[in-house]
Amino acid sequence: KADATAAPADLSGFTRVKMELVAPPFAPTHDQVAVGGPKIIEITMETTERLMVVDEDTGASIWALTYNGSVPGPLIICHVGDMIELTLRNPADSQMEHNIDFHASTGALGGGGLTHVFPGEEVVLRWKATKPGCFTYHCAPGGAMIPYHVTHGMNGAVMVLPREGLKDKDGNALTYDSIAYIGEQDYYLPKDENGEYRTYELAGEDYSDSLEAMVTLTPTHSVFNDAVGALTGEHALKAKVGETVLMIHNQANRDSRPHLIGGHGDFVWESSFGDQPMTGMETWFVRGGSAVAAMYTFEQPGVYAYVNHNLIEAALLGATAHFVVEGDWNNALMEQVVAPRAFTI
Amino acid sequence: KADATAAPADLSGFTRVKMELVAPPFAPTHDQVAVGGPKIIEITMETTERLMVVDEDTGASIWALTYNGSVPGPLIICHVGDMIELTLRNPADSQMEHNIDFHASTGALGGGGLTHVFPGEEVVLRWKATKPGCFTYHCAPGGAMIPYHVTHGMNGAVMVLPREGLKDKDGNALTYDSIAYIGEQDYYLPKDENGEYRTYELAGEDYSDSLEAMVTLTPTHSVFNDAVGALTGEHALKAKVGETVLMIHNQANRDSRPHLIGGHGDFVWESSFGDQPMTGMETWFVRGGSAVAAMYTFEQPGVYAYVNHNLIEAALLGATAHFVVEGDWNNALMEQVVAPRAFTI
Amino acid sequence: KADATAAPADLSGFTRVKMELVAPPFAPTHDQVAVGGPKIIEITMETTERLMVVDEDTGASIWALTYNGSVPGPLIICHVGDMIELTLRNPADSQMEHNIDFHASTGALGGGGLTHVFPGEEVVLRWKATKPGCFTYHCAPGGAMIPYHVTHGMNGAVMVLPREGLKDKDGNALTYDSIAYIGEQDYYLPKDENGEYRTYELAGEDYSDSLEAMVTLTPTHSVFNDAVGALTGEHALKAKVGETVLMIHNQANRDSRPHLIGGHGDFVWESSFGDQPMTGMETWFVRGGSAVAAMYTFEQPGVYAYVNHNLIEAALLGATAHFVVEGDWNNALMEQVVAPRAFTI
Ligand SMILES: [Cu+2]
Ligand SMILES: [Cu+2]
Ligand SMILES: [Cu+2]
Ligand SMILES: [Cu+2]
Ligand SMILES: [Cu+2]
Ligand SMILES: [Cu+2]
Ligand SMILES: [Mg+2]
Ligand SMILES: [Mg+2]
Ligand SMILES: [Mg+2]
Ligand SMILES: [Mg+2]
Ligand SMILES: [Mg+2]
Ligand SMILES: [Mg+2]
Ligand SMILES: [Mg+2]
Ligand SMILES: [Mg+2]
Ligand SMILES: [Mg+2]
Repeated sequence: KADATAAPADLSGFTRVKMELVAPPFAPTHDQVAVGGPKIIEITMETTERLMVVDEDTGASIWALTYNGSVPGPLIICHVGDMIELTLRNPADSQMEHNIDFHASTGALGGGGLTHVFPGEEVVLRWKATKPGCFTYHCAPGGAMIPYHVTHGMNGAVMVLPREGLKDKDGNALTYDSIAYIGEQDYYLPKDENGEYRTYELAGEDYSDSLEAMVTLTPTHSVFNDAVGALTGEHALKAKVGETVLMIHNQANRDSRPHLIGGHGDFVWESSFGDQPMTGMETWFVRGGSAVAAMYTFEQPGVYAYVNHNLIEAALLGATAHFVVEGDWNNALMEQVVAPRAFTI
Repeated sequence: KADATAAPADLSGFTRVKMELVAPPFAPTHDQVAVGGPKIIEITMETTERLMVVDEDTGASIWALTYNGSVPGPLIICHVGDMIELTLRNPADSQMEHNIDFHASTGALGGGGLTHVFPGEEVVLRWKATKPGCFTYHCAPGGAMIPYHVTHGMNGAVMVLPREGLKDKDGNALTYDSIAYIGEQDYYLPKDENGEYRTYELAGEDYSDSLEAMVTLTPTHSVFNDAVGALTGEHALKAKVGETVLMIHNQANRDSRPHLIGGHGDFVWESSFGDQPMTGMETWFVRGGSAVAAMYTFEQPGVYAYVNHNLIEAALLGATAHFVVEGDWNNALMEQVVAPRAFTI
Repeated sequence: KADATAAPADLSGFTRVKMELVAPPFAPTHDQVAVGGPKIIEITMETTERLMVVDEDTGASIWALTYNGSVPGPLIICHVGDMIELTLRNPADSQMEHNIDFHASTGALGGGGLTHVFPGEEVVLRWKATKPGCFTYHCAPGGAMIPYHVTHGMNGAVMVLPREGLKDKDGNALTYDSIAYIGEQDYYLPKDENGEYRTYELAGEDYSDSLEAMVTLTPTHSVFNDAVGALTGEHALKAKVGETVLMIHNQANRDSRPHLIGGHGDFVWESSFGDQPMTGMETWFVRGGSAVAAMYTFEQPGVYAYVNHNLIEAALLGATAHFVVEGDWNNALMEQVVAPRAFTI
């Protein structure tokens, strides 16, 4: 627990900046290689509770618990040695207490012990990023409320870049043209005796029903960015052949295994940016309660499906996103030599 | 999507060869270190649908969807820089459309977008192997048909060797005496109201029942090479003390954790052959939708059980194979100093 | 199978010592860097069956099958090149046959084939530790009895240290001040038609009911060190700021993803001590059927929750332990800049 008698932090070497957070799947404006000395990065997040449709086909809905209204919460980016200074506000019309645990931080349950805010309250927490990597953050009010809030959408990621940017195992710089920030959310939606999804009047009203659904350990949905289809069709991610995307996959609760259909993880950091990336992976792993980064340079145009490669979860539970990539086809990499035709033997 | 206007591939530096595919757990004839320049390796696979017994004890059966009639489909082997040229044929008496997505390839959904064949059709796809490693391939006709086909057996592996063969972290050559190609297949077999496994007249007839079973995410079976006991007893794998086996484990849908009871993974490539192998592992990991290679040199004779070390899956769902190893026992590694005897205290 | 005609082991270079095993979460007295030449380490374990409360809140109980009465069984520690010589005794009043499979050993199903002891019997097995790492051991009597015994508590870990101790990737020594040996146990407790946990008169009586519960692959409990809350409150682990703890996590059956809330895995060995540790991890992975080591140096005082970061398993199934850490708070790492207060916008 923080101690009021502890020496004050020496902030003299830091420059204060504000970071405008943006909704997923996008990333805030940032430098890949740190410019100048360490910063205190000021951000604000609001703990918003909102009724949200999870699957338009079935009408399944949830009173989502969110940071800034989105599932996942916004991506935060800094460099090793920077400090994040968060103002966390719980609107007066909220039903529930919230807080935040940053996996990237050190002490006080990741800040969870210092940030409990009731409806109408705000708190300010500052913490130093000492370890490079992508890290989950999430609400953790205590006991069963922890998985309840996390499986209602209250989680996101911080990326702590090395000051010198990303490197391959030989120390060569690795840079990206864009970030695709994908939060995978497992929902455990209660059903009634007829197998229909229940509806609720208020956030929190589904608490006891949700615990019953959660204890099966079997989600009814596992979606990318809040709802089934949130990153497909007109909401698909965009890229061009030759461009490099950094895919940040956040899963705050449950293991996942991302795969880019038709592509690869050229460089994958499952553990941290302090370790050499793994290379040429077909499918990588997100230890439940982690954020992971994978980098890929597109070599062919077309539609790529990005999935949790438990294909049941991808196709039936919602864990599918799309990249639409423009450019020229390369027959040297792949060619349909003979189009489908009738054969006789 | 492939573009008819794209420049033709330059195939001038390639030698054409045919590879005879063989049924699992065996590997096709191949060189560990590439001989000569890059090759275009011609293979043929047929999308065969067949009624198959999954467990003789219970009579549980499935209309399996297969490549070449086996679960998993045949192992394909090439080197980085080679091309695979596949003729894929869907027999006229099939019930269903099929295609193939090669995780080792680049573009067009891994070839899935270019290879849809209806009953009576064939297609020819050529793709270049650019990344070293073991990779899953599987049918992916779209939507819920993807997990349906994959969990009905329609998957296998490609091994793309480095041209110079396998190496340890210090660059020393690692060679093997044999390959054990083990596909782990999770089945989700529908049951009737009495808990008996349902039977069906035709491939595909179990579709809607299967979706209900799949969405539980809990397989009724998880077997090595098509059925319970397919690699035990008279079908056990064989080796000798001092021999090195490369165990290739393919799991196209669901995480697994292979373990060789009484042995180890001396060298394990979970990510790719482009990364250093992990060493001395008790249990390794197959990210669902991956193929993984583990190398072991037998030091003792006897029976080794190769399992998915979720021991419930090994013992109750079918995920057990056996190696029978001949040679001389080494008391310096292990000795029964006192055989079981009565004691009194 | 061991062969009576094999040459006897040459034990001339070994010194015999006895190791007193202690109950978890503690570690036996040991050297981190090996002192002197190789040893034959004599240990004794008893296969104790006992009725145990799993959750005091619900009264859920199990006839646990144990090594030395604890879940997990005691931690065994040696160095590469040492031999473990185990006397395994099955008390005369036991109901069941037991044995032991050491993942760290080589041959005879990890010793499982040489150690079957019926009630009233003892056996002595000696095996050589050739691979550095943390390894699971467990009972493996055969068939469905394997997961039955393992999910009734009959498992533990051996740590085989490199003779020169632990190192970082650059070869610098890594030492620890204490070990926290945490066994995660998944239980599948049968319930009656009213959803109440069943009770049984004798060890083994729950066998067929347990198989039904196990085949769901969904545990009713996943606890650290035998029961819900076994390592929290007055049983919490202790440390001081600046101290380094080596957390050894054993999960003999089911994947886990340990996370230290408010801290990190500074160094994590998921595979073996023969590989470089991963660094700065938020959440690490235990492949089901593995023991894993993670090292952390505490930087802040307070309570740290150590969890399986499937937060449902942590909060609802029991997978939570606590570290209570004394020392001075460091505002430079984290500071509550503004305590919770009302806000108006
Ligand atoms: Cu909350
Ligand atoms: Cu957390
Ligand atoms: Cu198919
Ligand atoms: Cu795939
Ligand atoms: Cu036992
Ligand atoms: Cu085992
Ligand atoms: Mg839908
Ligand atoms: Mg720290
Ligand atoms: Mg991370
Ligand atoms: Mg059977
Ligand atoms: Mg590529
Ligand atoms: Mg692979
Ligand atoms: Mg309780
Ligand atoms: Mg060995
Ligand atoms: Mg281990």
